[in-house]
Amino acid sequence: MGSFPANIPELKDFNPLDLEEFRKQAYQTVDFIVDYYKNIESYPVLSQVKPGYIRTQLPESAPNKPEPFETILKDVQNVIIPGMTHWLSPNFFAYFPATVSSAAFLGEMLCTGFNSVGFNWLASPASTELESVVMDWLARLLKLPTSFMFSDTGGGVIHGTTSEAILCTLVASRDRALETICDENIAKLVVYGSDQTHSTLVKACKIAGILPRNVRVIPTSKEDNFALSSTNLRTTIEADVEAGLTPIYLCATVGTTSSNAVDPVGQLADVANGFGVWVHVDAAYAGSACICPEFRHFIDGIERVDSLSLSPHKWLLTYLDCSCLWVKQPILITKVLGCNPEFLKNKPTELNSVVDYKDWQVGYGRRFRALRLWFVFRSYGVANLQSHIRSDVRMAEMFEGFVKSDPRFEIVVPRQFALVCFRLTLSDEYEPELVELFNRDLLDRVNSGGKMYMTHTVIGGTYVLRFAVGSTATKEHHVSTAWNLIKETADMLVGEC
Amino acid sequence: MGSFPANIPELKDFNPLDLEEFRKQAYQTVDFIVDYYKNIESYPVLSQVKPGYIRTQLPESAPNKPEPFETILKDVQNVIIPGMTHWLSPNFFAYFPATVSSAAFLGEMLCTGFNSVGFNWLASPASTELESVVMDWLARLLKLPTSFMFSDTGGGVIHGTTSEAILCTLVASRDRALETICDENIAKLVVYGSDQTHSTLVKACKIAGILPRNVRVIPTSKEDNFALSSTNLRTTIEADVEAGLTPIYLCATVGTTSSNAVDPVGQLADVANGFGVWVHVDAAYAGSACICPEFRHFIDGIERVDSLSLSPHKWLLTYLDCSCLWVKQPILITKVLGCNPEFLKNKPTELNSVVDYKDWQVGYGRRFRALRLWFVFRSYGVANLQSHIRSDVRMAEMFEGFVKSDPRFEIVVPRQFALVCFRLTLSDEYEPELVELFNRDLLDRVNSGGKMYMTHTVIGGTYVLRFAVGSTATKEHHVSTAWNLIKETADMLVGEC
Repeated sequence: MGSFPANIPELKDFNPLDLEEFRKQAYQTVDFIVDYYKNIESYPVLSQVKPGYIRTQLPESAPNKPEPFETILKDVQNVIIPGMTHWLSPNFFAYFPATVSSAAFLGEMLCTGFNSVGFNWLASPASTELESVVMDWLARLLKLPTSFMFSDTGGGVIHGTTSEAILCTLVASRDRALETICDENIAKLVVYGSDQTHSTLVKACKIAGILPRNVRVIPTSKEDNFALSSTNLRTTIEADVEAGLTPIYLCATVGTTSSNAVDPVGQLADVANGFGVWVHVDAAYAGSACICPEFRHFIDGIERVDSLSLSPHKWLLTYLDCSCLWVKQPILITKVLGCNPEFLKNKPTELNSVVDYKDWQVGYGRRFRALRLWFVFRSYGVANLQSHIRSDVRMAEMFEGFVKSDPRFEIVVPRQFALVCFRLTLSDEYEPELVELFNRDLLDRVNSGGKMYMTHTVIGGTYVLRFAVGSTATKEHHVSTAWNLIKETADMLVGEC
Repeated sequence: MGSFPANIPELKDFNPLDLEEFRKQAYQTVDFIVDYYKNIESYPVLSQVKPGYIRTQLPESAPNKPEPFETILKDVQNVIIPGMTHWLSPNFFAYFPATVSSAAFLGEMLCTGFNSVGFNWLASPASTELESVVMDWLARLLKLPTSFMFSDTGGGVIHGTTSEAILCTLVASRDRALETICDENIAKLVVYGSDQTHSTLVKACKIAGILPRNVRVIPTSKEDNFALSSTNLRTTIEADVEAGLTPIYLCATVGTTSSNAVDPVGQLADVANGFGVWVHVDAAYAGSACICPEFRHFIDGIERVDSLSLSPHKWLLTYLDCSCLWVKQPILITKVLGCNPEFLKNKPTELNSVVDYKDWQVGYGRRFRALRLWFVFRSYGVANLQSHIRSDVRMAEMFEGFVKSDPRFEIVVPRQFALVCFRLTLSDEYEPELVELFNRDLLDRVNSGGKMYMTHTVIGGTYVLRFAVGSTATKEHHVSTAWNLIKETADMLVGEC
């Protein structure tokens, strides 16, 4: 891009965007990433470094002079990679995997390349409009009612995390309630979830000023497969109303983090609607499966809820961060989060003819995230995306079969999607505490070996191992190998008794 | 949009991460971005599309079958680019520019490539530890006291936006206060800013449940260069205390968005500290300048505040999104935002030996944003970063000189950094309303021509044009050309009278 003007001498040699250097180094970085993906199985899946490992390898302060790109890239290899837990390893079965694809990578490169700051329509019309279009596309794929679409009176937005989606809808429900009961009564507002709801609901309540003692964590049970019972919801709400409190918000979950429990959306909405309670459905993980007809029933009743969130970065190949939120009445959100400082005033906004996404989220600035979703939909097509979901479910089914074939193990809750919750039960002669210790030990040994990574949870008081299939590179043989490792580790453990 | 290509494999072969295809298409995308940067001056800086332009060009639903990469890339050129407002154009002088660099682009590619989800240390040790290290590096560059560093008892985190930084510190201050005055008293809490504070403070208050009537917008004046006066702060706080309210939080700004006013940090902290008020300094834009010794005095007194935020994506070449927040007592934030669901429990966290950044932010998931800052510091070194800041300031100074040399214009407030606030004054014979109309018209004509983009504000009741130098590619000749265009447009306008 030419050299710097001669009359600013110190900068003669400084051009942070030399385009031929940019091209060359970006190619090298692409190659670096390809090599990383090729070699990813050679690294321990769960990083084996000790806390504080990086500080000892880096200087105390930023350098005063430039360092060569090759030196920095070498440090990525030698200093960063050993400290990575490799989420994209095909042997990563922890948490929920974060899925990726070439298409999303390219979309993200362009998003970075444009570096548009789409706080309002004018600042980046394409970014805003493409986001609205892809949100409608995904809504159609999920067979959401049109009331969630821009083509009707609703609409969608891409947030960074489900937490933000929950927080924004929660404050909308809070202020709707406070309008009628006087804004000093925030201490009377009550929020509902189950003991399986993601802890981000509690966090959102804390941020929004809902008193911790007014967040109802309704117990679930093994008989209900840890789904929230609408009867229990009704009883809880009625007791609160009786006590003079004001119920405002329910977070129902389709595919809980612990065990993939599915709350009965329609039944819960029927109860909540009777009390004017905002119903949000958190389908962060399992929502993606609902693009397949055979899974769509899990969100039956969705037409009676107020909002739905789903994170394509979890299961729709988009890389982080991409959390979709649809709402029926965007006005309830923009009334709270809307703002119109003088320096952003502009005609399209004043004519009310556009969406200004800054009014749908916590912050002002926002990246062009929609490109990734658009690239994924177009590059692969719906049929491939459906088969991708089915393939993961099939592999989980296969793993479930392995577990069932070994009498020392049990499936703790029925598998619904691509997460298998299981544990070593051994025989009746062992105390429950000892069984838990065995399972903890099994998990530690498996993970510290670095060949695979899975995580745990506790459901209904029982310590459970979680095996989540979904890393983009995972194939059947990775699942079999993982099972063999688990089995052999169990053999060893039992043998040591 | 293209027929089903013959080379798309059968569904059973669906591989969304074919590495040779990945490499080839990523190279193509790099080339696309280089071409975009090369040609960027040929596009209107402010997009000239009309609301709704994109929906007419795209199908109603996602395609069922894959489309070729080349087709999609062609649509980026023909459908997306016309709808972009080109933030990276050297003729972009609007808002605050968003700065970029090769180094940050490469760091971001790696961040995407790894796709780690660093909610806690264990899930991505390198991501957490590098973030802590670069936050300490930047703190040292800014000569912050060690009380803001991990090497002492404080620490820093990278958020997506300043809004999140303000929200997180606000809820920390809120809950600290509620601990002593009973948590039902949220309606008594008062927050302070000036009429120049970014409107995100009001938004954060709304989210956090602070009553709108308890957010004090203290007036500023032209005599004080629109800085918040510590005398007015004291009077306002004293009146609130007198009225039985509880002051909790002050947002002071170093470099306001409208005019780059600088609130007197030390004086304000002295007042606020006397009332136990949390002092946050929002230095989103101008904080970056404080890496140069000659600007450092603007944050003098910083050792007496509780938190500081600064967005390197605005002026430190990092691409979006990168907003740094330092706090002296992280425990006050993690007490509110901390959470420890069973499925994330792990030994390093239990031993309290690590930072779990999910407890420092709204969401759980987080990207490896520190890579960008690390790449920028190492690739360029501090001396070049300082020169980069100085060069922008010098170009703004040059523009200021142009304005001063034309008697029809005036500088409305003294320039402090690289933002020039000016307006056409014409002569005394014109009414103020007419002068405003002239300025509005001038802005419209300049922006709708597409050759440059600047924005406006209103300060002290006066409509003002904002010319913000800082786009990475801007050179002196762009500034001169922009001035000539402004002058010629003014000539035309005046001639039409």
